Amino acid sequence: MERYFDDSVVIENNMPCHNQQTNNVNQDHAIMKQVRFANSNASSAVSNSGVEEVKETSEGLNTEVQVQLGPQLKLLPLNDQIRELQTIIRDIKTSRGDFVFCADRLIRLVVEQGLNQLPYSECTVTTPTGHKYDGVKFEKGNCGVSIMRSGEAMEQGLRDCCRSIRIGKILIQSDEDTQKAKVFYAKFPPDIYRRKVLLMYPILSTGNTVIEAVRVLIEHGLQPKHIILLSLFSTPHGAKSIIQEFPDITILTTEVHPVAPTHFGQKYFGTD
Amino acid sequence: MERYFDDSVVIENNMPCHNQQTNNVNQDHAIMKQVRFANSNASSAVSNSGVEEVKETSEGLNTEVQVQLGPQLKLLPLNDQIRELQTIIRDIKTSRGDFVFCADRLIRLVVEQGLNQLPYSECTVTTPTGHKYDGVKFEKGNCGVSIMRSGEAMEQGLRDCCRSIRIGKILIQSDEDTQKAKVFYAKFPPDIYRRKVLLMYPILSTGNTVIEAVRVLIEHGLQPKHIILLSLFSTPHGAKSIIQEFPDITILTTEVHPVAPTHFGQKYFGTD
Amino acid sequence: MERYFDDSVVIENNMPCHNQQTNNVNQDHAIMKQVRFANSNASSAVSNSGVEEVKETSEGLNTEVQVQLGPQLKLLPLNDQIRELQTIIRDIKTSRGDFVFCADRLIRLVVEQGLNQLPYSECTVTTPTGHKYDGVKFEKGNCGVSIMRSGEAMEQGLRDCCRSIRIGKILIQSDEDTQKAKVFYAKFPPDIYRRKVLLMYPILSTGNTVIEAVRVLIEHGLQPKHIILLSLFSTPHGAKSIIQEFPDITILTTEVHPVAPTHFGQKYFGTD
Amino acid sequence: MERYFDDSVVIENNMPCHNQQTNNVNQDHAIMKQVRFANSNASSAVSNSGVEEVKETSEGLNTEVQVQLGPQLKLLPLNDQIRELQTIIRDIKTSRGDFVFCADRLIRLVVEQGLNQLPYSECTVTTPTGHKYDGVKFEKGNCGVSIMRSGEAMEQGLRDCCRSIRIGKILIQSDEDTQKAKVFYAKFPPDIYRRKVLLMYPILSTGNTVIEAVRVLIEHGLQPKHIILLSLFSTPHGAKSIIQEFPDITILTTEVHPVAPTHFGQKYFGTD
Repeated sequence: MERYFDDSVVIENNMPCHNQQTNNVNQDHAIMKQVRFANSNASSAVSNSGVEEVKETSEGLNTEVQVQLGPQLKLLPLNDQIRELQTIIRDIKTSRGDFVFCADRLIRLVVEQGLNQLPYSECTVTTPTGHKYDGVKFEKGNCGVSIMRSGEAMEQGLRDCCRSIRIGKILIQSDEDTQKAKVFYAKFPPDIYRRKVLLMYPILSTGNTVIEAVRVLIEHGLQPKHIILLSLFSTPHGAKSIIQEFPDITILTTEVHPVAPTHFGQKYFGTD
Repeated sequence: MERYFDDSVVIENNMPCHNQQTNNVNQDHAIMKQVRFANSNASSAVSNSGVEEVKETSEGLNTEVQVQLGPQLKLLPLNDQIRELQTIIRDIKTSRGDFVFCADRLIRLVVEQGLNQLPYSECTVTTPTGHKYDGVKFEKGNCGVSIMRSGEAMEQGLRDCCRSIRIGKILIQSDEDTQKAKVFYAKFPPDIYRRKVLLMYPILSTGNTVIEAVRVLIEHGLQPKHIILLSLFSTPHGAKSIIQEFPDITILTTEVHPVAPTHFGQKYFGTD
Repeated sequence: MERYFDDSVVIENNMPCHNQQTNNVNQDHAIMKQVRFANSNASSAVSNSGVEEVKETSEGLNTEVQVQLGPQLKLLPLNDQIRELQTIIRDIKTSRGDFVFCADRLIRLVVEQGLNQLPYSECTVTTPTGHKYDGVKFEKGNCGVSIMRSGEAMEQGLRDCCRSIRIGKILIQSDEDTQKAKVFYAKFPPDIYRRKVLLMYPILSTGNTVIEAVRVLIEHGLQPKHIILLSLFSTPHGAKSIIQEFPDITILTTEVHPVAPTHFGQKYFGTD
Repeated sequence: MERYFDDSVVIENNMPCHNQQTNNVNQDHAIMKQVRFANSNASSAVSNSGVEEVKETSEGLNTEVQVQLGPQLKLLPLNDQIRELQTIIRDIKTSRGDFVFCADRLIRLVVEQGLNQLPYSECTVTTPTGHKYDGVKFEKGNCGVSIMRSGEAMEQGLRDCCRSIRIGKILIQSDEDTQKAKVFYAKFPPDIYRRKVLLMYPILSTGNTVIEAVRVLIEHGLQPKHIILLSLFSTPHGAKSIIQEFPDITILTTEVHPVAPTHFGQKYFGTD
């Protein structure tokens, strides 16, 4: 708790997120509330309800986050459904069945936003009634890479949106002797250096595992600017470490909060 | 084509949507483009990328739509993935397999936003590490009602997000003799008057079928303010008719456009 | 209860099913057990475990059923998983969530067996290692038709096995004035008369609704021999009525039992 | 090819499977046909269609296989749908999308049969109409373990049948120096020694990977008799090696054939 409180203070100074009220709340109490998204922008995801609120909140949020981490860290537009899913995932009382169900829903939303970061081109199609319709078409040449073990929980969500996307995998563990992060397993599509990569890892805590995984991808010829990191929760520190190391990467997450739900993988798969 | 063009003109004067540039484009040409979402706000769904753009576009959009139809008509925050799904659904060349797959993805996104309109309350949970977390909890007492036939395509998407939600159904057809819309079948949860209803119908063209369905729900004791209409595409006229008849209803859709993809049900189910 | 018992007696004389021990059990007690599948053939679905048992049970079963109803009534090979699903669906204490989950699993198994009744041809393919492989290929030209309301519960299971299969629908209700079954709605693929039809209705109780639906299909030019009726549970009377009316139809079910779980549709959809 | 042919000959002498005609076919040609399931028992899965055929074929099959490998090797009852799925998976021309779709369907069928091997107990439930119903109930205390990488393709199928089953994982690779199989990663539920384990690995070729995985499970206190190995395809040699090493294990598969579709994992995940 001591350590956590210290973290929290540091964070408030260095990387407030999603709401400028962060700095004003009472620090003695309810720490998790301080850096959570405020309720006020909860309805912002539906674009035309409550103009003023949306504008005001977005402004505060974006300016502040941009100053801190730049446009690389992208948060899903918060809404109450997402907040409920976050709540259920955080709650110690949630059953495994509900946990998996809610995690899968949140993953699906992150995947949809992740796909949205990929390059597309304009196109015009003809409708069944013979009209022209100006639309968009995403470019081919993407793939997924999950970081074991918890990243594997996101594979099915990706597959549910992209039926036949290729999915690579990477396993990083501490070396027993040196205690350093070491790659134990890596399997990628052969031409990964030419692809955009959706890198999957749900919980960004220190960021070290992801940093190691990105290094392996770079060794395979990939440029960091072609990596979109899909995550569910991030600590401020985790996001910051990754961006400092790879300023061109894109990180997508639903919440930046000093306490990460590090039980995620264990609870999702039921192992320890 | 003639009729369509006339519709389009009327619409531009009366109900521009999602972008103020609507009024400025060249009317001789590319009609479907005129009332589509502009590309400029395509990235607005991710809240902290491109502050200025988000603010500016939202402002224009919301003010204008509110003047026209008020806050009852809610559009999903447009992004490129949604635009791609819309494009594939519109395209006459799309195979049935791809059509169903993309329709299901778009339905899922609408359902997630629809659930987000439901009432919730604040709550505090305890995390596995012993911290308190301020979250939200949705209230019980909701149900789905699909309007046959095309509304049934949305049932599975709702079920995928709410495992055991009750789903009623209503069939409205023209009476052979009088040509008036008539209810042929209706089956609801017994206590529907106490519930919030997610009414499902993907394509709002004239709005007549939905209006008839809402009347039946009102006869069962439901108040229109407890109805959230989930749809994929709406004509300006369709949305307007429904809101004029029931000013308290909420309509959710992904695109307001004078040409509705009326082939939806036929292509989804493969019948005619 | 009285009526039920009488039914049961009739059934035991006329249409014992799935096990010849049916006739021997004590009739004073445990009626539902009498006409259930015996445990002894529970493992018969896996073909090479326990040769003797499989043979003996199958023999008794098949001979007896063939004498009664001929080869048109096909029962899924019983196994303990199917028995568990049947048990959960029968149990009044089952939650709606579990009910839907188990019903969906059982539906999937019936759909897989239903697809297996469709015509196929032999074919030879080449494997990635250059070998020839003698396989089979199902013919095109099938579709599904669900009988409302409960038949709709089976649509997703069919779609999960056949991504883009066309699915028609039919609504039959009692006429308010005449009390006779009347078709209120029917929507089929345009060329249904040339297709094989998987007709979906989970509970065969009297068989009247299915008989009416088949008549409508015949009016559309379909031959009964091209209809495969997919169901979960059937009464002996229901199966018999349908086969007497249409001797060329194929009926697939998981259990023939005098007490049909007629609460199925209501519990699945949560309506009444 | 040489080795393959030799294997095939050996197999025919030592481990014919699923059909006694195996020994009679012309060995010069159409090798893959020799050890395939014969068409004659294709309809055997539906128990009461064609009594004679079912009995006769089962008899031949079971007797012969039992003599060779005993009751531990269980083949799914073959039917035409399964044959079609096998054909599509074998065919080099199959697209990745179709491959994944068909593999997932076949996996689901294997998982359903695998669950069926688990212990259950008799129980009596009450139906909504007040009748007693004699059913079965599976015992708790199971889990899944996938062997990386291809075994992971079976995780979702297991999860689709058992919503919150715990799933462990194991990675075995050749040591660079010694070339011996070595465990690089293992994560199991903490009390795995008390559970029944559904071990997942789709293609049994030499059997070595599975043998190594079973050794790790034994080191964790598990008895081989509590392991049910779920696979899609097996070579005769692979099944034989595993059973010789662990005579108490249960193996479930859909086809025993000297040519294993070893491209499975690569094609399923799109990596190499």
